[in-house]
Amino acid sequence: MTVAKKWIYARAFSGLPTAEDFRLEEETLEQIQDGEFLAEAIFSSVDPYMRIYMAQYPVGSVMIGGQIAKVLESKNPNFPVGSYIHGNFGWRTHTVCNPDKTEPHWVPYVLPDFGKEPLSLGLGVLGMPGSTAYFGFLEICKPVPGETVVVSGAAGAVGSIVGQIAKIKGCRVIGLAGSDKKCEWLKTIGFDQAINYKTADIASELKLAAPKGVDCYFDNVGGLITEIVRGQMNSFGRISVCGTISCYNAEKAKVTDPQRDYVWKQLRQEGFINWRWNDRRLEMIEQNLRWIREGKLVYQETVTEGFENMPAAFIGMLSGENTGKAIVKI
Amino acid sequence: MTVAKKWIYARAFSGLPTAEDFRLEEETLEQIQDGEFLAEAIFSSVDPYMRIYMAQYPVGSVMIGGQIAKVLESKNPNFPVGSYIHGNFGWRTHTVCNPDKTEPHWVPYVLPDFGKEPLSLGLGVLGMPGSTAYFGFLEICKPVPGETVVVSGAAGAVGSIVGQIAKIKGCRVIGLAGSDKKCEWLKTIGFDQAINYKTADIASELKLAAPKGVDCYFDNVGGLITEIVRGQMNSFGRISVCGTISCYNAEKAKVTDPQRDYVWKQLRQEGFINWRWNDRRLEMIEQNLRWIREGKLVYQETVTEGFENMPAAFIGMLSGENTGKAIVKI
Repeated sequence: MTVAKKWIYARAFSGLPTAEDFRLEEETLEQIQDGEFLAEAIFSSVDPYMRIYMAQYPVGSVMIGGQIAKVLESKNPNFPVGSYIHGNFGWRTHTVCNPDKTEPHWVPYVLPDFGKEPLSLGLGVLGMPGSTAYFGFLEICKPVPGETVVVSGAAGAVGSIVGQIAKIKGCRVIGLAGSDKKCEWLKTIGFDQAINYKTADIASELKLAAPKGVDCYFDNVGGLITEIVRGQMNSFGRISVCGTISCYNAEKAKVTDPQRDYVWKQLRQEGFINWRWNDRRLEMIEQNLRWIREGKLVYQETVTEGFENMPAAFIGMLSGENTGKAIVKI
Repeated sequence: MTVAKKWIYARAFSGLPTAEDFRLEEETLEQIQDGEFLAEAIFSSVDPYMRIYMAQYPVGSVMIGGQIAKVLESKNPNFPVGSYIHGNFGWRTHTVCNPDKTEPHWVPYVLPDFGKEPLSLGLGVLGMPGSTAYFGFLEICKPVPGETVVVSGAAGAVGSIVGQIAKIKGCRVIGLAGSDKKCEWLKTIGFDQAINYKTADIASELKLAAPKGVDCYFDNVGGLITEIVRGQMNSFGRISVCGTISCYNAEKAKVTDPQRDYVWKQLRQEGFINWRWNDRRLEMIEQNLRWIREGKLVYQETVTEGFENMPAAFIGMLSGENTGKAIVKI
């Protein structure tokens, strides 16, 4: 009989969590059944997302999270005894798991061979934060050599990897972090500049650090910092929204940071000016004409007569007086 | 000698423009030179963008804008006498133009044959609003049949086309417009639902109209409406930010609507959850391991010892005490 320890979400978080929000319990585990295995935690992860994800779970739940564990007993050939695995088992020392009954995106997996690197990297640069940085930056920002990249939360598990990957890809990299010590560390790992957002005038420091403007922004924090960085972005800039940690512990009003919707729902948003497609104008005209002739596309015009009435037509259009296209017949 | 009439931006806009912001002037045009042509306006466009673009021009400038014009004289073989053209000549009755000296995205062009359709469509469904709707919706939202599409400013030149294209593409379409009359019209041209944002409880009406949530949002307005629609979007939703007209006439505080940056700078933003790339995990591990071994990627861990210290590690991480990845050694 195995007795597992587990940390319970004992009280709903409000602001920064405190020790009273957690309760340690014990649980006697059942014998494993066919398809199951028993694993013992070696390393457990604590990550920012837990702060906000726990709001989805009732008080009394086990704290969620990933861990590196060793398989002690197994009735599942894919998870043999002695193998090291990553599992989203929560804050538990021992877990009985049936992988087939796990949420698809949280299915456990046997770690590939890390060679001489420590197993704990399976929770970091070779685990969830690694893929968050690697894919979240490369796939969404699509950095180009010579571009300027800004990373917020730069000294964290994800941000510190993003900045280094950006350097590998030939970019200029500026990190935002919360202490001089972190900023110093960022420079030792290759960041071109690091700004202590707690003490600096972020906007003016960023202008100095990114004189050609910002092309890519990897956003871990949301809130005011994001507004400042966005204000200094170049045309066709890309923002990868990974997290909004600046708002996780805030009061309700600030928790509604709009960036949060983009993360949780994996939304994509893009602004545009139509002349981007000037070279495909004829395609549009031919297609829209065809639809008009097929009766699938109708148009309405609100026509004002006379060149002298242009201001009136303009003011009326801005006041919503038109339906369809507002034009002036000269 | 040709005398052109032109409308001058006589006073900087503040709030909704008024007649006093404009002044009508006359200008005697020079004889055309090699490469130039003289054109006479037939239809002129008034568009929302003019309200905010004029802020870039000094008072005393000619109002900007597109027009359909007829070439009266020409020393440019690409613009023969008698041809009908689109030119961004501003609010002018007559214009001498050298296409080679025009800003690239504002170069005039001879209209293709519209058949029986009126020339004025070159300012609407077959012109700038047409391409704005056609490309801005199809290229950025990439609608899928069966999806739910919301269009704000739906009864305008662009929005009314977007909604119809969305119907052609097999989507369910909901329009937001500013009067019952406009909403009625939207239904006659195929919109499944139309909401009068001036009188309706937008959030609850939208929930009724889009019971499966919103997949694509074509945003002409920004501000509060955008916040409401975004709150009802589904995972992997796409937002095409075309304009922020709800803020164009507002006081300074509201003019800083964040959507505006996305339009003007054509920014792209995407939020994500890392498990999107779970099936490519091995690619990340192999690449990050290679970079670690090559010395290009370093990692730092902040290790807390002991399962009993997990809450302390978690709270410390949220307080910014960690550098790099925060883990707990069990």
